[in-house]
Amino acid sequence: MVIGNTCRFLGRPRFSVVHPLARLFTSSNMAKSKFEYVRNFETDDTCLRNCYIVVRLDGRNFHRFAGQHKFTKPNDNRALGLMSRSARSVMEELEDIVIAYGQSDEFSFVFKRSSTWFKRRASKLMTHVASQFSSSYVFYWKEFFEDQPLLYPPSFDGRVVLYPTNRNLKDYLSWRQADCHVNNLYNTVFWTLVQKGGLTTAQAEDRLKGTLAADKNEILFSEFDINYNNESAIHRKGTTFIWEKREETVIKRMKVPGEEEKDVPVTSSRRRVQSYHCDIIGDQFWEEHPRVLEDDDS
Amino acid sequence: MVIGNTCRFLGRPRFSVVHPLARLFTSSNMAKSKFEYVRNFETDDTCLRNCYIVVRLDGRNFHRFAGQHKFTKPNDNRALGLMSRSARSVMEELEDIVIAYGQSDEFSFVFKRSSTWFKRRASKLMTHVASQFSSSYVFYWKEFFEDQPLLYPPSFDGRVVLYPTNRNLKDYLSWRQADCHVNNLYNTVFWTLVQKGGLTTAQAEDRLKGTLAADKNEILFSEFDINYNNESAIHRKGTTFIWEKREETVIKRMKVPGEEEKDVPVTSSRRRVQSYHCDIIGDQFWEEHPRVLEDDDS
Amino acid sequence: MVIGNTCRFLGRPRFSVVHPLARLFTSSNMAKSKFEYVRNFETDDTCLRNCYIVVRLDGRNFHRFAGQHKFTKPNDNRALGLMSRSARSVMEELEDIVIAYGQSDEFSFVFKRSSTWFKRRASKLMTHVASQFSSSYVFYWKEFFEDQPLLYPPSFDGRVVLYPTNRNLKDYLSWRQADCHVNNLYNTVFWTLVQKGGLTTAQAEDRLKGTLAADKNEILFSEFDINYNNESAIHRKGTTFIWEKREETVIKRMKVPGEEEKDVPVTSSRRRVQSYHCDIIGDQFWEEHPRVLEDDDS
Amino acid sequence: MVIGNTCRFLGRPRFSVVHPLARLFTSSNMAKSKFEYVRNFETDDTCLRNCYIVVRLDGRNFHRFAGQHKFTKPNDNRALGLMSRSARSVMEELEDIVIAYGQSDEFSFVFKRSSTWFKRRASKLMTHVASQFSSSYVFYWKEFFEDQPLLYPPSFDGRVVLYPTNRNLKDYLSWRQADCHVNNLYNTVFWTLVQKGGLTTAQAEDRLKGTLAADKNEILFSEFDINYNNESAIHRKGTTFIWEKREETVIKRMKVPGEEEKDVPVTSSRRRVQSYHCDIIGDQFWEEHPRVLEDDDS
Repeated sequence: MVIGNTCRFLGRPRFSVVHPLARLFTSSNMAKSKFEYVRNFETDDTCLRNCYIVVRLDGRNFHRFAGQHKFTKPNDNRALGLMSRSARSVMEELEDIVIAYGQSDEFSFVFKRSSTWFKRRASKLMTHVASQFSSSYVFYWKEFFEDQPLLYPPSFDGRVVLYPTNRNLKDYLSWRQADCHVNNLYNTVFWTLVQKGGLTTAQAEDRLKGTLAADKNEILFSEFDINYNNESAIHRKGTTFIWEKREETVIKRMKVPGEEEKDVPVTSSRRRVQSYHCDIIGDQFWEEHPRVLEDDDS
Repeated sequence: MVIGNTCRFLGRPRFSVVHPLARLFTSSNMAKSKFEYVRNFETDDTCLRNCYIVVRLDGRNFHRFAGQHKFTKPNDNRALGLMSRSARSVMEELEDIVIAYGQSDEFSFVFKRSSTWFKRRASKLMTHVASQFSSSYVFYWKEFFEDQPLLYPPSFDGRVVLYPTNRNLKDYLSWRQADCHVNNLYNTVFWTLVQKGGLTTAQAEDRLKGTLAADKNEILFSEFDINYNNESAIHRKGTTFIWEKREETVIKRMKVPGEEEKDVPVTSSRRRVQSYHCDIIGDQFWEEHPRVLEDDDS
Repeated sequence: MVIGNTCRFLGRPRFSVVHPLARLFTSSNMAKSKFEYVRNFETDDTCLRNCYIVVRLDGRNFHRFAGQHKFTKPNDNRALGLMSRSARSVMEELEDIVIAYGQSDEFSFVFKRSSTWFKRRASKLMTHVASQFSSSYVFYWKEFFEDQPLLYPPSFDGRVVLYPTNRNLKDYLSWRQADCHVNNLYNTVFWTLVQKGGLTTAQAEDRLKGTLAADKNEILFSEFDINYNNESAIHRKGTTFIWEKREETVIKRMKVPGEEEKDVPVTSSRRRVQSYHCDIIGDQFWEEHPRVLEDDDS
Repeated sequence: MVIGNTCRFLGRPRFSVVHPLARLFTSSNMAKSKFEYVRNFETDDTCLRNCYIVVRLDGRNFHRFAGQHKFTKPNDNRALGLMSRSARSVMEELEDIVIAYGQSDEFSFVFKRSSTWFKRRASKLMTHVASQFSSSYVFYWKEFFEDQPLLYPPSFDGRVVLYPTNRNLKDYLSWRQADCHVNNLYNTVFWTLVQKGGLTTAQAEDRLKGTLAADKNEILFSEFDINYNNESAIHRKGTTFIWEKREETVIKRMKVPGEEEKDVPVTSSRRRVQSYHCDIIGDQFWEEHPRVLEDDDS
């Protein structure tokens, strides 16, 4: 397009240059407003008020991912550590999350009932959590896997579920912890049979077909001298994050008018994310941390 | 818990060991099924059939992020390259995406009308896209920002919008490209006034208050000898990805029975993601790529 | 509560009466605003733009209702007439309905794609249709069932379904008309076997088990000399309502200044609801009434 | 179509008749299955579990309807009676409704938290309520308006709102009763000013502009000797329906083997709908009827 330069050399009056461009850009601007009707196709996905909002993430194709990155069996502490580090990153970013619980390649984040984060829009809440978790997972990878390079960017999918009462929410978390228990017991026996018992994976699978929890426990105990209850709590119970207030006392040098400068202890209260690897199905955890959940009828 | 060992030494019959544990684990298993009712609180968010499903991602706090990572103004080609690299990673992972369009810190992904990916569940589609994009962004960072370390994991939020007809979908994409045009023209003039014209940012903002597209264009042209239409297409038009079929011919050494081994050219057709930086508001792009969209009435 | 009268007799100053009441009512008013937060629990159920909105009603427990009100078998023309009268009442009330189709105890109403009736809120659309239809059904009952009193108020339930394209909508209507065909053929043979063939209902059911349409047709034809295609169109095809423009000419006595009063024909165009009992699966109906549906890509 | 008869007269073999028809009807049957994909366009609108489901109906254009049917002002007891009669009909039909509250031309129906009626599908619940209410309104009209014929079928629209806790639900009902109070006080004063005070409606409106509840009360009291609190409870408080258990004793003639036949009192417990016109904002009503609401945390 040479109109511009030509015009300049010929010294044509300014409007002759401006006119065609003006038409072009005015129509572009008009175009935008002409297209803006498409915004009305967005639907409102506001979460029902006064319900807990749970966002759960699950690793996609993590069986393959674990194999390619040589995760140890039945549990890889580096991988669990990285999951927890990423979850902590989400929780510190989104302060309305009151509790998070994770195990294996999944993590659940619970927003408080009264949260107005993102105007409670489900899509925004779940995509932000999924995004923050995923970028953190790659970002912190090398802190946990020093010698094992990340081969490709992994992904997680998410969902939103609402729970109207404290009972429902606790039952949700209990469900995930019971799932952790069932899977970890199975995996512990399975890999013990393979790694210490010399079975092939097919043989181990066969051996465990139809067994109950008690049978699995008995195999560990009588054949391998392993008491399942002494296994690592992080593997048996998963990881729970809550916010806790900490009193912190710092010595500060201060000067009060009319007095000499002196060291003064200054105490402040700071919220920070604390992790637990304990039972959250029974009442004890909830009695010890009564502020995690709001009252049903407040 | 020493029951196990004690029992063993005393040679107690097996069932005496099993009983208490059996009770424990049976009740855990029962617990899981007792809690499983919470699954019914999940709601079905299946997208309406025969509509295009658009997932749009937007960078969160990218103004701050851009400042901390010293993005050049008005456009940083490294940042745009990384956005495109991440979008390509999403598109290659989710083959039902027929077209993607991005500009600045946003990217839109369009799933074909007939897609049954994730059973069309909106939550799965948008979280997977957000997750894959975000982990890719961190994963590929150093390919684009060699000397600039990533300071913290960034995040994107997403949304899902449905479009019933080709006209509506094209208008959506036109809306985003018109937005790209309006913003890039503004930013180009603004930063030219600051970087070449010596104005402060406040003065530049003031200067541009109330100006139309034609005025901005005229400032560039008459004061800085810049014809906006000669600016980089990637900045003016953003980036469009579509799938294209490529014929590929490879020479393979083959042996046909009864003949001597020889070199044979083998041609195969392979889909790959192709990028464009052209106008997608007019009809030309769509006429040149008639297979991107399905017919409304098929 | 006698405060008022007591006060009056005692001649107490006015404010002493007013104060307690003022407190009472002020707090009532405040109460209302205190409770208004509950409005935020309503969720937005706006229908996706540019889609046809179908509301389908189905009679509840109409098998029992038909028995109690002695509907004739296999079709009761009074009942069908009342259904159609009620549907017409809905259509005349809600002008954005472009087509309605009914058979047996069901009726479907199709709102045009561009309708903004009730801001496209699904709940409002379907409850209004269900309400108008039901009150009309009772209101017009005696026009169709002169000798048969209505024993109790019947009810209908409804649903909303969206269709993005003309093809999808036509297929929906075809599905309902195909359903009409299948049911009516079955019922015609069944009741012919019972009423003319002397079979019990159990025998007739048995006789028809596993028969195809051709078999049923053959039974009618060879055993009862009935050609199904000569049966009443309203029973075989159901009832379709659309809007039609009619030119109407009325003679009006008018006076033009300077002339004598005289009779003048005045023509006006008036929309009215027209019924059809024809095939709507094939193309002919749609070609003859091209204005019923809007273009997909407009 | 004469194929059938022709064939018969000519004594052609049966299959020659069957073939064309078979093709016709087989294709019709196939057609139905071909169209059935349209069912998948229905979306799931299941209500979140463990929440109260409120369906509220509002009269459409009832201002006009009231005028045309000469409703008395400010309240028409026939109209209120008919609303209540219709609500009772809904409640008796849908036993999972635990409480209903109505005033003026609106009625709210509350389904219990644990209801699985219609699988908790919002559309089914609200259309059934709207339909049953509307057909009842017409059906029972002449019981309340003996001398006033119903001129046309009225309609109501509805909506569904979910409440997660007892507090939220009570606040919803309080909100409606506070609305009843505010409106009825206004209407009472307004129509007193017109009917007894001789003001025009415009003058009455003017007089009430900006007045508080206390002012309105004072007008009634000092100018018309009316103590608002002595007005009819049904007008001030609206109508609340709940289910109540009644012990009923009936004398039955029974014969026990080996004894003579004799009269025996048989007591049974029967649920029936009971109406109240009392305050439901305070705690008293809920304390007196503790079984209406389920516990939040059950």
